[in-house]
Amino acid sequence: MPTRFRHAALIGKYQAQGIRPMLEAIADFLGRQGLEVSIDHETAHNTDWTEHTALSPAEIGAQCDIAVVVGGDGTMLGIARELAAHNLPLVGINQGRLGFITDVRLSDWAEALGPIIQGDYEEERRAMIEGAVWRDGATIFEGLALNDVVVSRGATSSMVELRVDVGSDFVANMRADGLILASPTGSTAYSLSAGGPILHPSIGGWVLVPIASHTLSNRPIVLPDSQEVTITIVAGRDASASFDMQSLASLLHGDQVRMRRSSQMVRFLHPRGWSYYATLRRKLRWYEGTV
Amino acid sequence: MPTRFRHAALIGKYQAQGIRPMLEAIADFLGRQGLEVSIDHETAHNTDWTEHTALSPAEIGAQCDIAVVVGGDGTMLGIARELAAHNLPLVGINQGRLGFITDVRLSDWAEALGPIIQGDYEEERRAMIEGAVWRDGATIFEGLALNDVVVSRGATSSMVELRVDVGSDFVANMRADGLILASPTGSTAYSLSAGGPILHPSIGGWVLVPIASHTLSNRPIVLPDSQEVTITIVAGRDASASFDMQSLASLLHGDQVRMRRSSQMVRFLHPRGWSYYATLRRKLRWYEGTV
Amino acid sequence: MPTRFRHAALIGKYQAQGIRPMLEAIADFLGRQGLEVSIDHETAHNTDWTEHTALSPAEIGAQCDIAVVVGGDGTMLGIARELAAHNLPLVGINQGRLGFITDVRLSDWAEALGPIIQGDYEEERRAMIEGAVWRDGATIFEGLALNDVVVSRGATSSMVELRVDVGSDFVANMRADGLILASPTGSTAYSLSAGGPILHPSIGGWVLVPIASHTLSNRPIVLPDSQEVTITIVAGRDASASFDMQSLASLLHGDQVRMRRSSQMVRFLHPRGWSYYATLRRKLRWYEGTV
Amino acid sequence: MPTRFRHAALIGKYQAQGIRPMLEAIADFLGRQGLEVSIDHETAHNTDWTEHTALSPAEIGAQCDIAVVVGGDGTMLGIARELAAHNLPLVGINQGRLGFITDVRLSDWAEALGPIIQGDYEEERRAMIEGAVWRDGATIFEGLALNDVVVSRGATSSMVELRVDVGSDFVANMRADGLILASPTGSTAYSLSAGGPILHPSIGGWVLVPIASHTLSNRPIVLPDSQEVTITIVAGRDASASFDMQSLASLLHGDQVRMRRSSQMVRFLHPRGWSYYATLRRKLRWYEGTV
Repeated sequence: MPTRFRHAALIGKYQAQGIRPMLEAIADFLGRQGLEVSIDHETAHNTDWTEHTALSPAEIGAQCDIAVVVGGDGTMLGIARELAAHNLPLVGINQGRLGFITDVRLSDWAEALGPIIQGDYEEERRAMIEGAVWRDGATIFEGLALNDVVVSRGATSSMVELRVDVGSDFVANMRADGLILASPTGSTAYSLSAGGPILHPSIGGWVLVPIASHTLSNRPIVLPDSQEVTITIVAGRDASASFDMQSLASLLHGDQVRMRRSSQMVRFLHPRGWSYYATLRRKLRWYEGTV
Repeated sequence: MPTRFRHAALIGKYQAQGIRPMLEAIADFLGRQGLEVSIDHETAHNTDWTEHTALSPAEIGAQCDIAVVVGGDGTMLGIARELAAHNLPLVGINQGRLGFITDVRLSDWAEALGPIIQGDYEEERRAMIEGAVWRDGATIFEGLALNDVVVSRGATSSMVELRVDVGSDFVANMRADGLILASPTGSTAYSLSAGGPILHPSIGGWVLVPIASHTLSNRPIVLPDSQEVTITIVAGRDASASFDMQSLASLLHGDQVRMRRSSQMVRFLHPRGWSYYATLRRKLRWYEGTV
Repeated sequence: MPTRFRHAALIGKYQAQGIRPMLEAIADFLGRQGLEVSIDHETAHNTDWTEHTALSPAEIGAQCDIAVVVGGDGTMLGIARELAAHNLPLVGINQGRLGFITDVRLSDWAEALGPIIQGDYEEERRAMIEGAVWRDGATIFEGLALNDVVVSRGATSSMVELRVDVGSDFVANMRADGLILASPTGSTAYSLSAGGPILHPSIGGWVLVPIASHTLSNRPIVLPDSQEVTITIVAGRDASASFDMQSLASLLHGDQVRMRRSSQMVRFLHPRGWSYYATLRRKLRWYEGTV
Repeated sequence: MPTRFRHAALIGKYQAQGIRPMLEAIADFLGRQGLEVSIDHETAHNTDWTEHTALSPAEIGAQCDIAVVVGGDGTMLGIARELAAHNLPLVGINQGRLGFITDVRLSDWAEALGPIIQGDYEEERRAMIEGAVWRDGATIFEGLALNDVVVSRGATSSMVELRVDVGSDFVANMRADGLILASPTGSTAYSLSAGGPILHPSIGGWVLVPIASHTLSNRPIVLPDSQEVTITIVAGRDASASFDMQSLASLLHGDQVRMRRSSQMVRFLHPRGWSYYATLRRKLRWYEGTV
C-alpha cells in the first residue's frame, strides 16, 4: 500500500533568488493537495520568503515525510547527504538541463508531483560511502559521500603513491594522479571521466578508479561494498582526500582514508515509468536506433 | 567442520601426452593419502593410462567429491562448465605460467594438495552465465559460460548493430564490433582487453562491454545479475554468438541472445592464504611498493 | 593566382535515384556559371539522366578539372580513391548529416559552390595508404585506402597474432582482434572507436591501433609515413586484410600486408572560412564554452 | 664522415654521492682514449671531486663537444634542457632500470662508449616545446620542455575549463583535470598515463591529451608542431602551468599559455644498433613472439 504524503519540505538551490516564483507555485500546488508545506530555512532566507514555516535540515528530517528539491545534481547531492540520517524520500525538479539524479523537468513538475504525493511513484535507493581520515591512530576528518571519495596528489606534486587494502587483503600500491572510490551514483560523474565503468544503482559495490596511473595495467576494479577499503598515503607531497568535494588537504605519509558503506541510504522518488537506462541514454546521448 | 575428501577425479589438459608422469605422481600421492582415484576417460585415453578407473564427466560428477585439474585456465574453463551441474569442487594445478583461475604451481602441488584434501582450503564460488539464442520464438542454441558471452560482427561486415534490453527495460542500440557480457571471472579475460573493468568475484553482476563502439559514450556498464540481459541483432551481416568461445555463427536480424545467471556455480578450492588480489598483482604485474 | 574551373564532373551517391532533382539544379547552376558539366556514367545510369555527357572515372580524370560529389563520407571515400591518380579536386555536398569530409550542407550548396568554382576556396590535401598482400614472395592483392587498412581475426578465431615491422625495425608481436593502420583522414573513423587519437591532416604519419589487445601496454602508436609498415600473420585462423573495407580474407600464416604512403594525394576543396577543428567540434559535439 | 670527440663533460645525477667511483672509471677511460675530461661543477661539488676542471653548464656548452650523463631519465631531462642552446650531443648511462632516453646500462658503459667517442653511433634528434605564460599582454613566465607542458586544476578545484586555439583556429573549450601538450619524447611519460598515444620521435607534431575530460569525446589529438598552441584559462581556481614539472601556480582567468616548437633540438647519441622500438618493447613489456 503506497504512502500518501502529509508534510513536504521545499528546498531550493543555494543562492537562487530567482526561483521564488517557482517555489511559490509548487508550495501552492502542494497546499491545495492537502499537504502541509515547510521551507528549508536557507532557501527561505535567500528568497526573503516568510509565508511558510522555515525549518533547519534536522527539523525537516524530524517533521517532514517528503522533500521536494528544486535545483541540479549538485544541489541534490548536498541535500541528500544532509538529510541522509532521516530516511526522507527526495524528489528532484531540475531548472536547467536534466541531471542524472534530478529528473523532473521544470516544465513538467505538476504532472510529475501530483501522482507522487498520492503515493504513485518509483522508489530507488542509493548507497553512500562513509569514511574517515586517520592519523597516528586517531580520526582527524569524517565524511559522507553519495558520489565519490577522491584521494589525489597536491598541485605541486607530480604524483601520489597510494597503498590500497580491501578488508585485510593488500591490493597494490598505485602511483597516479589519484584514486577515486565511486558509488554507483558517482560512477557517472568524475569516475566516468577518469575511465571508470557505469555501475547500475543496484550493484552492491564500488568502483576504484586510478586517475592517470603510471602502471598501465592498473585498471578500474569493482569491489564489494561489504568490506572496508583503506587507502594509505605512501609518497607524494600535499595529497588530499575529498568526500563529494568536501576536502581535507595536506595529508601526510602514513595517513589513511578508510571507507565503508554507510548504513544510511538515499531514497529518490521518480515518476511512474522512470527508467535508469533512459537517463543514461539522454545524458550520454546513446543511440536509440532509427525507429 | 571442513570436509575430508574420499574420491578424487584426476583430469589432464586435452591432448597432453607428456603429462602422464605428473598425473601418476599425483595419483600415487592421493592414493597414499587414502583417497580413491579415478581418471577422466579422455585423459586416460590420451595418455594410454589404464591403471585407474576411467570415468566420463557425468560419472565423475556422480561418484567423485573433488576434481584435480592439471592444465591452464582454458582447460579449467572447459572442465568447470562440464562439471557445473554436479557441484564438484575443483583444484587447478598449472603446468605453465600461473593463470587467473589455476593457481597452484606445478612445483608446489604436493604442499598445496596435502592440506586441501584434508579439508583445509579456501573455497571460492564463481557465477556462470547461461543463455540461449532465440529465432522466431524458439531456441536454436543453448550455452553456458564461465567467462563471457560475445556477440560480434561477421568478418566481412564493418559492424553490427545490437539492441540491448535488461529485464523489460530498453538500454540502447549499440553499433560496434560486438558486445561482451562478462562474468567476474571473465572480467580479466577478453573483456579487459576491450576496456572493461575488473569485477571482484563476489560482485553480483556482469559487465557489458562494447568492442570498438561507434558511439564514444557507450562505456562499459556493470549490470545486476538478477535480470535477464537480451541482445537483439538489428543490423550487420553474419553476426555470431559465442559462449566461452563455443560459437553459433550466421545470426539473422531479429535473432536474440538471452542471458541470465545460472543456478549453478563453480567451486574453486585454493590453498589456505590464497588471495584474489595477489593473483591480480602477479598476472597484471601491479606495483607492490619498494618494501 | 587561384584557378577558375572549366569542366565539372557531377557524381551522386551509389543507387541514389531520388537525388536527380538536386543534381539537375547543381548542373544548371554550374552551366549558368559557364562550366561544362559532365555526369559520372553510373550516376547517369542510376538516375536515367541523359542530358549531359556521361563519363567513366578515367574519362572524368582526363577531361574534368573539378568533381562535385553529392553523398556522404562513404561515397566520397570511394570516389576519392577512384580519381586519386588524376589529381582532381573534390567538393562534397552532403545530403544527410554532415560528415568529416563532406562538409557542404545540401541547403547551402549554391552559396558554397559559387565562390569555389571562381577559384575562391581552401584546399586541403589528404594522404592515402597504398599496400599489398604478399604470399610466398609474390603480391596477391593490392589496395588503396584513404581511411585505413585493417588486419583482423576471422570470425571463428579468438584472436590473431600479428608481427609489426617499420622499415627494417621490428616493433612487436601483437595478439589482438586486429590492427588498424589509419591515415589522418581515417583517424576519426574506425580507429577512433578502437581508442586511437585524432591526427590532424597535416601530420606526416599514420596511427597503428590495436583492437582489444591482450597486452594492455600495446597502445596506439603514431608512426612516420616515410617508412613501410609490414604486418605479418603469425597465428590465428582466417585473418583478413581490408583497405577502406575492400577485403581479402583467408590470409595464411606468413602472409604479409605491406603499406606505404601513396604518391597520390586527395584534394578537397572547402568554402573559404572552413575549419578542420569546427568539423571536429560539430561531429564529436565538443564543448565550445557558454559564450 | 663521423666526428671523433675531443672534450667530454661528465655529469652525474643530482645529489648522487655514491656514483663517484663510477664517474672516475669513466673519466679514466675517456682520458686514456685521448679526450680531455671536464666535470659538471655541481657534480664535482656533490662528490668532492677536484681532480678535473669543473665547468658550469654554459662553460660545458662552450668548451665541450660531448656530454656523458650518468643517471636516469629525470637527470637527462634536466641536463638536456640546460644544454639545449649549445647543440651538444648527449649519451645517457643509466644506473638503475633503463629509461626511455637513458639507454646504456651501467654494466655496459665501456663497450658502448668506446665506439661512440670514435664517432661510431646513431644520432637521434628530439624536438622541444618552448612556451610562455601571458597575462594582460605581457609574459610572466617562460619555460622549455623536452617532455610536456601541463596546464591543470588547482588541488581544491574540481576542474579547470581551458580554451584551446591552434594558430588562429579555435579548437574547443575543455573541462577536465587539465591538458597535456606532449612532445614525442613526452608521449611515453605522463601523456601515456592519461591515455595518449605514443609518438615516434620523427613525427613533426605534439599530442594534446585531456586529463579526465568531462566531455567523453574530447580525445587525444595529434597537432602539427608548425603552429602555436594557445591554452587560455577560462574557469577554475588556482590552475597551474608546468614545463617538465617546473611550475607556475595561481594562474588567473584570461591567462594564456602559448607554446611553439623550439628552434633548438636535443641530440642523443646511441650505440650502433640501437632501436627506438626495442626501447618501447623493454619499457612497456611488449610481447616479442615465442621465438
